[in-house]
Amino acid sequence: MASKIITISRQYGSGGREVGEKLAEKLNYAYYDKEVIRRAVEESDISEEFFENSGESAGKMFSYFLTFANGGGGTAGEDTLPLPDRIFLIQSKVIKKLASEGPCVIIGRSADYVLRDYPDVLKVLIYADNDSRVHRVMKRNNLTEKGALARIKKIDKGRALYYEQFTGNKWCDALSHDIAISTSKFSINETVDILAEIAKTHS
Amino acid sequence: MASKIITISRQYGSGGREVGEKLAEKLNYAYYDKEVIRRAVEESDISEEFFENSGESAGKMFSYFLTFANGGGGTAGEDTLPLPDRIFLIQSKVIKKLASEGPCVIIGRSADYVLRDYPDVLKVLIYADNDSRVHRVMKRNNLTEKGALARIKKIDKGRALYYEQFTGNKWCDALSHDIAISTSKFSINETVDILAEIAKTHS
Repeated sequence: MASKIITISRQYGSGGREVGEKLAEKLNYAYYDKEVIRRAVEESDISEEFFENSGESAGKMFSYFLTFANGGGGTAGEDTLPLPDRIFLIQSKVIKKLASEGPCVIIGRSADYVLRDYPDVLKVLIYADNDSRVHRVMKRNNLTEKGALARIKKIDKGRALYYEQFTGNKWCDALSHDIAISTSKFSINETVDILAEIAKTHS
Repeated sequence: MASKIITISRQYGSGGREVGEKLAEKLNYAYYDKEVIRRAVEESDISEEFFENSGESAGKMFSYFLTFANGGGGTAGEDTLPLPDRIFLIQSKVIKKLASEGPCVIIGRSADYVLRDYPDVLKVLIYADNDSRVHRVMKRNNLTEKGALARIKKIDKGRALYYEQFTGNKWCDALSHDIAISTSKFSINETVDILAEIAKTHS
């Protein structure tokens, strides 16, 4: 039985997003990343700005955490949940809806946690050693080594805060995934080939 | 290029040893586990009892740590290193020698760390969720659930102490391996198939 849903958690700078895109293309699966956000926005009354920042940067999102952590309702109107919780719940709902629509690859957004009890989900973690990540971020974002390091540290911290806050699990821990692959050892294309073979052959 | 050396780190009760045995058989590679110990013993003057306990149980080995941790030479004769350090060094030497002799699968013994700079090594981590591990240990060791849990906890603790003491890395962390696979998601045979395919196809 093929894996119908593939979630990809990834360290920043590991090439996990590229793995996901190519894997979806190879398997002819739908690919969801910002699309998840767009749908979540369509189904809620929370402005797009909030979603754009959730789970992707430590800065703005964390300031929302601080503002709303004690249960402040913020601009949420009649909903009494803190805003970050509302965002997480709406995103979770959207992820479950997308997963029900057909085979797909979902990047980030704690989808591995949201779909943890779904039987035909392959939960993948993509990581890399620090040198590879710095090299990739320097090239992709046209940064110095120092700049790339700072960016990696900042984005990792933001993702970890978001993930751990809502899932209670440690971020980037293989033990909460089905398979974890290093793109320092394998190229992006090799990683895609390995995962496509697994998704096609094994449940 | 095929991976010539495959190291397998594993959580106790994950079936990692069985994966290693079957993988070696499938690839026609040598398989090393207690063999590593035997050779180490042959090349040293330290009694087999010490080796049998290193890296495999928290109890005896840890008492040696406590006894020798401050540099006590113990029965080591002219060698002034603490005994656990000597054991680790001799085992490391043996692992490197085995790796130089031809394609092989090496289970445990921090081989992933010892061979970390070798280019054609595939560093594998095998893990499983707690339910799978308890179930496997209950069946294999004829234990109650409580007994299996206690055994898992004790052996994991011993392995972690040993690994972290000598490598400085966190034990069972995917990030110090090339690939990590859950035997809760994949059967032992599926895991062997996945790894054999990777070892044959990718460097």
